[in-house]
Amino acid sequence: MLKVAICGASGYTGIELLRILAGHPGVRITAVTSERSAGKKVSDVFPHLSVYGGLKFQPMDRDALVDKADLFFLALPHGASQEAVSYFFSRKKLVIDLSADFRLSDEKVYEKWYGLEHKFIPALRKAVYGLPELYRARIKKAKLIANPGCYPTSAILGLMPALRSGIIDTSNIIVDSKSGVTGAGRKADLAVSFCEVNEGFKAYGIGNHRHTPEIEQELSGIHGKNITVNFTPHLLPVDRGILTTIYARVSKKTSQEEVGGIYQKAYKKEPFVRVLAAGVYPNINNVRGSNFCDIGVKLVERTSTLIIVSAIDNLVKGASGQAIHNMNIMTGFRETEGLQNMALFP
Amino acid sequence: MLKVAICGASGYTGIELLRILAGHPGVRITAVTSERSAGKKVSDVFPHLSVYGGLKFQPMDRDALVDKADLFFLALPHGASQEAVSYFFSRKKLVIDLSADFRLSDEKVYEKWYGLEHKFIPALRKAVYGLPELYRARIKKAKLIANPGCYPTSAILGLMPALRSGIIDTSNIIVDSKSGVTGAGRKADLAVSFCEVNEGFKAYGIGNHRHTPEIEQELSGIHGKNITVNFTPHLLPVDRGILTTIYARVSKKTSQEEVGGIYQKAYKKEPFVRVLAAGVYPNINNVRGSNFCDIGVKLVERTSTLIIVSAIDNLVKGASGQAIHNMNIMTGFRETEGLQNMALFP
Amino acid sequence: MLKVAICGASGYTGIELLRILAGHPGVRITAVTSERSAGKKVSDVFPHLSVYGGLKFQPMDRDALVDKADLFFLALPHGASQEAVSYFFSRKKLVIDLSADFRLSDEKVYEKWYGLEHKFIPALRKAVYGLPELYRARIKKAKLIANPGCYPTSAILGLMPALRSGIIDTSNIIVDSKSGVTGAGRKADLAVSFCEVNEGFKAYGIGNHRHTPEIEQELSGIHGKNITVNFTPHLLPVDRGILTTIYARVSKKTSQEEVGGIYQKAYKKEPFVRVLAAGVYPNINNVRGSNFCDIGVKLVERTSTLIIVSAIDNLVKGASGQAIHNMNIMTGFRETEGLQNMALFP
Amino acid sequence: MLKVAICGASGYTGIELLRILAGHPGVRITAVTSERSAGKKVSDVFPHLSVYGGLKFQPMDRDALVDKADLFFLALPHGASQEAVSYFFSRKKLVIDLSADFRLSDEKVYEKWYGLEHKFIPALRKAVYGLPELYRARIKKAKLIANPGCYPTSAILGLMPALRSGIIDTSNIIVDSKSGVTGAGRKADLAVSFCEVNEGFKAYGIGNHRHTPEIEQELSGIHGKNITVNFTPHLLPVDRGILTTIYARVSKKTSQEEVGGIYQKAYKKEPFVRVLAAGVYPNINNVRGSNFCDIGVKLVERTSTLIIVSAIDNLVKGASGQAIHNMNIMTGFRETEGLQNMALFP
Repeated sequence: MLKVAICGASGYTGIELLRILAGHPGVRITAVTSERSAGKKVSDVFPHLSVYGGLKFQPMDRDALVDKADLFFLALPHGASQEAVSYFFSRKKLVIDLSADFRLSDEKVYEKWYGLEHKFIPALRKAVYGLPELYRARIKKAKLIANPGCYPTSAILGLMPALRSGIIDTSNIIVDSKSGVTGAGRKADLAVSFCEVNEGFKAYGIGNHRHTPEIEQELSGIHGKNITVNFTPHLLPVDRGILTTIYARVSKKTSQEEVGGIYQKAYKKEPFVRVLAAGVYPNINNVRGSNFCDIGVKLVERTSTLIIVSAIDNLVKGASGQAIHNMNIMTGFRETEGLQNMALFP
Repeated sequence: MLKVAICGASGYTGIELLRILAGHPGVRITAVTSERSAGKKVSDVFPHLSVYGGLKFQPMDRDALVDKADLFFLALPHGASQEAVSYFFSRKKLVIDLSADFRLSDEKVYEKWYGLEHKFIPALRKAVYGLPELYRARIKKAKLIANPGCYPTSAILGLMPALRSGIIDTSNIIVDSKSGVTGAGRKADLAVSFCEVNEGFKAYGIGNHRHTPEIEQELSGIHGKNITVNFTPHLLPVDRGILTTIYARVSKKTSQEEVGGIYQKAYKKEPFVRVLAAGVYPNINNVRGSNFCDIGVKLVERTSTLIIVSAIDNLVKGASGQAIHNMNIMTGFRETEGLQNMALFP
Repeated sequence: MLKVAICGASGYTGIELLRILAGHPGVRITAVTSERSAGKKVSDVFPHLSVYGGLKFQPMDRDALVDKADLFFLALPHGASQEAVSYFFSRKKLVIDLSADFRLSDEKVYEKWYGLEHKFIPALRKAVYGLPELYRARIKKAKLIANPGCYPTSAILGLMPALRSGIIDTSNIIVDSKSGVTGAGRKADLAVSFCEVNEGFKAYGIGNHRHTPEIEQELSGIHGKNITVNFTPHLLPVDRGILTTIYARVSKKTSQEEVGGIYQKAYKKEPFVRVLAAGVYPNINNVRGSNFCDIGVKLVERTSTLIIVSAIDNLVKGASGQAIHNMNIMTGFRETEGLQNMALFP
Repeated sequence: MLKVAICGASGYTGIELLRILAGHPGVRITAVTSERSAGKKVSDVFPHLSVYGGLKFQPMDRDALVDKADLFFLALPHGASQEAVSYFFSRKKLVIDLSADFRLSDEKVYEKWYGLEHKFIPALRKAVYGLPELYRARIKKAKLIANPGCYPTSAILGLMPALRSGIIDTSNIIVDSKSGVTGAGRKADLAVSFCEVNEGFKAYGIGNHRHTPEIEQELSGIHGKNITVNFTPHLLPVDRGILTTIYARVSKKTSQEEVGGIYQKAYKKEPFVRVLAAGVYPNINNVRGSNFCDIGVKLVERTSTLIIVSAIDNLVKGASGQAIHNMNIMTGFRETEGLQNMALFP
């Protein structure tokens, strides 16, 4: 049994790790931390996690934690994660960091977009960006995973086949994303209170959302040249799900059939990416609670534009499910272990 | 492997059976029927069920179906189920009927509330009401299960300990229930269209809902004398979940502590009933997608009234999950097999 | 033009006063207070209130405010309202208090349920409970209105005709209410954050909600003898609306027709109460944004029980609309002035 | 009093006309038609419209209707509207058509996108596209108004100032729109049933939605040269509202300040367009139930892209409110008469 600790376990990504890992036969949860709920039983704070019986949240005391687990999931706020990651990593623990602190390989970019200095460059250099469809081989050998952001997961998986095949013009890529409210985290905040969000819909962070450089870093890596994108997030009045609509001009003559074939082939062996048939587009309610990314593609010949739509559950494929996928790869479990639940529909 | 067929598999209870059974290691789905989707692949109609790959819906042809499976789940409309149940039952197949056709043991009551004659009395006499917490021993030996209605499940589990202990006056029991929209089934109907339901809330079927005699039959059975209840269903603008608030006068002096103890003890060994601590009441979002029934009880001394609140997912504990629980009991699987998922929260 | 000030104008009842009064031809808003938004323009904080142009929120400085208006709406927290009400009242201003501080005529009951001493008994003695259907004549002469609570409004209007006619047994009245989230106020609070509430439903405050004594006070007043009720509030995942389902045994032989007639007659002249036809029950989406209270009644002969369902918009008839109705009555405007909007459906 | 008839009055745009016109002092509704509800009282089918008392839906009998009103709102299905519009128009009645049948001035484009022949070319030549911000002068003299589509209203108002000022490159305009479910109409259809839509989100009609040529026609007219756009609609799980996010490269050096100024100036005198301050973006919940269009603009210098976000209530500014605005202009009422309600927030 792999001993696993979760730091920051009372947020939405933390409890999603607990929910999924409850069905993983090879894992034992040995510690969970939470400042606001320290001392309370997990099942008292979250009745749906009754299976964890007597397990209690404890404060984040690294020295007390370090020997309790082989692998640490860190679901801490950006900035706060830097030091904690470095601590467990330097003590030879496997670390999967769900924050943004180790996703941007260039610390200058991190400092520019997050307004924070990166103080743990050696760990940063060892971190592997945990998108299995892109970095499976590296993840196998990694000790420190920077788990991708939710929006970037949907954008990168949506664009990867098109970029690799060279069919799109990379000079004017539009990434228009819509996310459910769990993406904002679990907190007392008027801006995410029910009556402010329900029956509403808005764009936010236009032109300056922090997931932009993460998307650009990975797209540029795939393409081999710098890519700049327009990324606009919106807030959907639903609990879970991201739907991303991507626009790019095609750079040469192609057909719906060819484009569909490129996508089908690219993800044929991937257990968690489903490319939909021509004319079918994803709906977030088909991935809710599951680790799938659904992708639909449409070549609009009239405008020479490729439109790609991808859907994920932001808490699963966009966070905790992908983190567990990474854990499975790092530790030699079957890749899909614990992640085979169908979506909950309706 | 137990071979299982699902008749009426394209409704919400049908696809919920498919969702849950996909995680059951001892079952193989050998046939699924649907009139409206006959000839189509399950995964084309329901993308979230992609795991079923090539499985296709077929029309309901009993003779062609009967040899394909050991156990038949019937999720057919009331009335239509009578004959199908009787057919498979008479051919020595295990049958779990999710309709109301075999729930009321007195055919006269059935005819009065459903406006239909019951034409298969021999099968009716053999049917066991499939509420495991009440009839586990009989279910073990049963060949034909009448799977309980969603509202009755929440009402009966809520009242059983109080009735058995004799602490309540049975002359004026109020059962005020609120259900999510999946309870109305999957259909093209203006009354359940999004804009008619969303941001709305209403009572319906006041004084004449068909689940009333089902509730009364089981409460009377527990009590040993006839019980009449006021049952009022309401339509909640959510996908899943029933919350039932029950009121009954206490018939003797008691205390919160005593009442809590009675409930804790009654369900101590039950894998799917969770009695909450004093002062804690259930929320449907803690059972969504799971087979749990959560129960909270409050003795209001000021009014000598016991108030019981129970919550279930109407598609799981209120239908398909309970049906699979019954299957597990009938066929000797571990009771919780396939049913151990935590609720999806949020 | 009547000069009106609103104290506590940045909560949901405050902005609802502003929304409705924008359509009232006889009123001019001369001051609005808000601690959290002091100094900001109303239209910057609430873009939908753009009509108020340059009007700014100011801090609650009573001495600076007192001469600015003829009538003060106070939408302050319970407890904080006591002194403010008394201040403006003693300076001969008309006051409509939307808090609970002046609703309970017996200060001992107030102290017991609210845990606060009432320090302004002279003002309390002058306060009129502002339910126009019950106290129209007194409201006309009142200088201080205690605007009814949202739950009590729905319960009292639902029960009044039955109580007056003497057809019900008052010994076991059940008031099962369900409210939208605006009822909890506008605040940063995890308990009302979107993901905690959405797709959820729960009971709360069972047996001890503070609206209980308010309901009992008014029902007892109508009946002429003390009445005790079981009142259970629930939280609906919608913005607006209260639906209350009421159960009472009938105390003598009656018929649906007779009961319907009693209700029709009771509210025939009321501009804001609509009694629905037999077999029709209210839906909160038919009153959303309007000052109507819809009522449906059903006599269940099988159980000798009268079931009454009432629906209001908690922010309008349950708060700000009723407050403006009271203002109209106090100041001689046409009763329906400013309140004639239809509900927004869907 | 202007006598007004509404044909197709039991759909969502029809009942929205009724809701708004109830507050218009210069209008009397003399006839309403509905096939499905013919013979029923408006207030029995739609309890929130109780103000209409005895008014009944009648079948669509043109000869019986023509003398009853001065102005006809037609809210009929596309195709069916052609003949009805032409009939009333040829009899010298004022006609405001809410269908798409008279929006596309080139009948060949209509036939291509709608698959229908246009049989009433003379009427088509007289029709004025009823977007007041663009065609106020023509609307004043018009006898036949083609009321704009909901998506086109949001797209055209969003782009008009940028196009007129010449600051954007028109070769690659992206219009990414998200609409509430009322946009799909009032009907029994599984695709818009609550459980299929709720907690879901999807794109549809990618590359071939019929509002595309309407958007292109008007943008081309403003620009003076042909413009082709990518238009992608999405279905939001809310009742009302369209939010449109528009992307266009800037064609010359500019600044946020300059762009903001262009938009502020363009709409300074418009009663129903609100240009938000820099950094503020619209939310559909600020326009719900109102006739406003809110617009936010952001110049992203990093990508030389102008991002425009517009929000309307699809049933009001996107349909019935705009139709009444057109009526006011055509008949000489004050432009804002009946349309001054604030949005219902929350």
